[in-house]
Amino acid sequence: MRVAVLGCGNVGGALVQLLLGDADGIAERSGVRLELAGVAVADPSRPRPGVPARLLTGDAKSLVADPTVDVVVELIGGLEPAGELVSAALAAGKPVVTANKALLAAEGAALAAAAAEAGVDLLYEAAVAGAIPIIRPLRESLAGERVRRVMGIVNGTTNFVLSAMTDEGLSYDEALAEAQRLGFAERDPSADVDGHDAAAKAAILAGLAFRCDVVDADVHREGIRTLTPLDIATARRLGFVVKLLAVAERTGGEDISVRVHPAMVPESHPLAAVRGAFNAVFVEGEAAGELMLYGRGAGGLPTASAVLGDVIDAAHNRLTASAAPAPARVRVPIRPMDDVRSAYYLDLQVVDRPGVLAAVATVFGEHGVSIRSMEQEGLGDQARLVFLTHTAREGDVMATLAGLESLPVVKRAGRMLRVVGVEEE
Amino acid sequence: MRVAVLGCGNVGGALVQLLLGDADGIAERSGVRLELAGVAVADPSRPRPGVPARLLTGDAKSLVADPTVDVVVELIGGLEPAGELVSAALAAGKPVVTANKALLAAEGAALAAAAAEAGVDLLYEAAVAGAIPIIRPLRESLAGERVRRVMGIVNGTTNFVLSAMTDEGLSYDEALAEAQRLGFAERDPSADVDGHDAAAKAAILAGLAFRCDVVDADVHREGIRTLTPLDIATARRLGFVVKLLAVAERTGGEDISVRVHPAMVPESHPLAAVRGAFNAVFVEGEAAGELMLYGRGAGGLPTASAVLGDVIDAAHNRLTASAAPAPARVRVPIRPMDDVRSAYYLDLQVVDRPGVLAAVATVFGEHGVSIRSMEQEGLGDQARLVFLTHTAREGDVMATLAGLESLPVVKRAGRMLRVVGVEEE
Repeated sequence: MRVAVLGCGNVGGALVQLLLGDADGIAERSGVRLELAGVAVADPSRPRPGVPARLLTGDAKSLVADPTVDVVVELIGGLEPAGELVSAALAAGKPVVTANKALLAAEGAALAAAAAEAGVDLLYEAAVAGAIPIIRPLRESLAGERVRRVMGIVNGTTNFVLSAMTDEGLSYDEALAEAQRLGFAERDPSADVDGHDAAAKAAILAGLAFRCDVVDADVHREGIRTLTPLDIATARRLGFVVKLLAVAERTGGEDISVRVHPAMVPESHPLAAVRGAFNAVFVEGEAAGELMLYGRGAGGLPTASAVLGDVIDAAHNRLTASAAPAPARVRVPIRPMDDVRSAYYLDLQVVDRPGVLAAVATVFGEHGVSIRSMEQEGLGDQARLVFLTHTAREGDVMATLAGLESLPVVKRAGRMLRVVGVEEE
Repeated sequence: MRVAVLGCGNVGGALVQLLLGDADGIAERSGVRLELAGVAVADPSRPRPGVPARLLTGDAKSLVADPTVDVVVELIGGLEPAGELVSAALAAGKPVVTANKALLAAEGAALAAAAAEAGVDLLYEAAVAGAIPIIRPLRESLAGERVRRVMGIVNGTTNFVLSAMTDEGLSYDEALAEAQRLGFAERDPSADVDGHDAAAKAAILAGLAFRCDVVDADVHREGIRTLTPLDIATARRLGFVVKLLAVAERTGGEDISVRVHPAMVPESHPLAAVRGAFNAVFVEGEAAGELMLYGRGAGGLPTASAVLGDVIDAAHNRLTASAAPAPARVRVPIRPMDDVRSAYYLDLQVVDRPGVLAAVATVFGEHGVSIRSMEQEGLGDQARLVFLTHTAREGDVMATLAGLESLPVVKRAGRMLRVVGVEEE
């Protein structure tokens, strides 16, 4: 089977090395012999170490159209020209393997429909959580499962930063600088720290878990820039770690909730142990119970390994003239954040005098938010109150916060964090 | 697609409930409509709550042969008649889904060959680690990957017992009694605590990871009966937890090592956090890096969920007249335990007088076993010496132990445990 690779960056380069360096081993292990048909790059005159010049081309369109090409691998990234090339390959009846989360989060349902119409595969195991097999388990192993919730640590940069803040007590700026120094964060970190990358992956996970059409613009998004060492330390004292989570969950109604935000995770929860640049996806199914898939979320070689698994699958399916099952995806309503239900952590600075707690508790009660636990810490003539709530409606929690801020005894309503893994509704 | 279910125990009963209770939901989520054709049981006259009497039959053979049956699910367990029925289904060109680890560990390669010859699926996601998707990731996602090592906590009973010994300081007998009381251990626990169940799963994992033919009799096997609270406590003090691991690894030569034994796992290792009746499989691949798959390893409903995923896959493949890829499996030599390389933990009771450590260290040196760290603890006129070694050949470690036991100053050579996750060779 002849494979065309579009893009030769970090992942593309590693894939080319695997295909050229271990073709016999791959054939022996998988039963499919893969031959590299060509590599499309922006500038084919620039030599690429380890890639024979005759395989390089600047004309991606012609490579996709080459009738001897059986499988197209898109590793260019971004919306265009990647989208156009993927569509052209599918229209020509060729299976496509891609790691392009941005494209999938924007156009996933349309591309899946185009693949289904052509009767070929569109596979993207590497688009979410790098080397971790998560797409195939969701699509195949859990094909009949009613998935209740998916929670993922799907961005290695933010997990590295939060781990450094937790384990070494660094500030956000210090931890980010450390991540940049080690190559875990970009010079402009906004795609990671503001949650854009995680939101694209949340959209893809939600689409698969609930067989629906979710785009990244549907995803409520909060990043990690404003988290302080005090937030992290307080969470730890209460037995939690702070993680940036991509969450997709059924609500009990017809809609779903899809969101990215920092959350407090109990130290005993499997997600709490996912440190540094590792990723993990935690799945709660009605029959399967709790599952977690853990591994390297980025890096050229690990990601190329996931791409290779897809290429073998696509090649095998092409040889047998079949394709992976692809149920139609329907649009479902996305629940507004105000209507999401969760447990919450709230942090208040108040004047330290008798009657303050009663005044504060009254505001919680007025909005129907039930307090699960409270801790008070003196700060001179002020006090810090830390609350964990029972499951509540987010709109009610926000109204509680607004009510608290208008109390004269409240100096500052600080951090609000959602808390996961503590109770079921 | 019409599905025949053989066996209606814990898992079979749960599968029947899923198929009867959620047929529309399964069809919607998976794109495949499944219809229960019949359930073969030993005594069809015994009513089964929730299963219509007309679906029950005592004649499994005829149910398998029924020309309207598209997919056969074998959940009887054991070698016969399960093996005969599976073979009959494959010979009749019907895909088979099974959770029968004993059968697969004994006859896996022959059954896989029969399935390949018939061009149909033999799927067994539920045979190892219950609901955890591990078979499909190994077979498909990692199809091209050169897997270096697989280490699994694949027996919930022993993990429950060891977790209770670790977390609550119970003795082995107390922890086992607790497991029996809670239904996590059988009245006769030998299949679990002596490692038979884990050995069957190790054989299946090795076969898939290395595309070879491994049977359970190939697997070196040690159980957990003799572990003491002192072993567990010492391990903890050194920063380790004790787990019963199924290990399958490449050796660097032409052979592989497949074994089940208690091992010391660093507290920071992802496997260390797998507690109670949960299972996990840790995979080290050359390109993919470290992966871990975690979830419920047993239980009717979680296991039935994994079976259902396979049934949908088999039904989809039957509709498209294809089958999952199944590379041929070859016999590979199994490395004798004496030639396995690992780091080791050793525990000695010695007379507490000057020169003892020198005498002991000399014995290590004579056998080429390098000491990584040593700890001494006084016990009246005796002392306890605890050693961690660098990677060594097991035969050399055993010879060291024999040499130590013949020293007059050594009162007792106690526990030997393999140590994983501390260094690479």
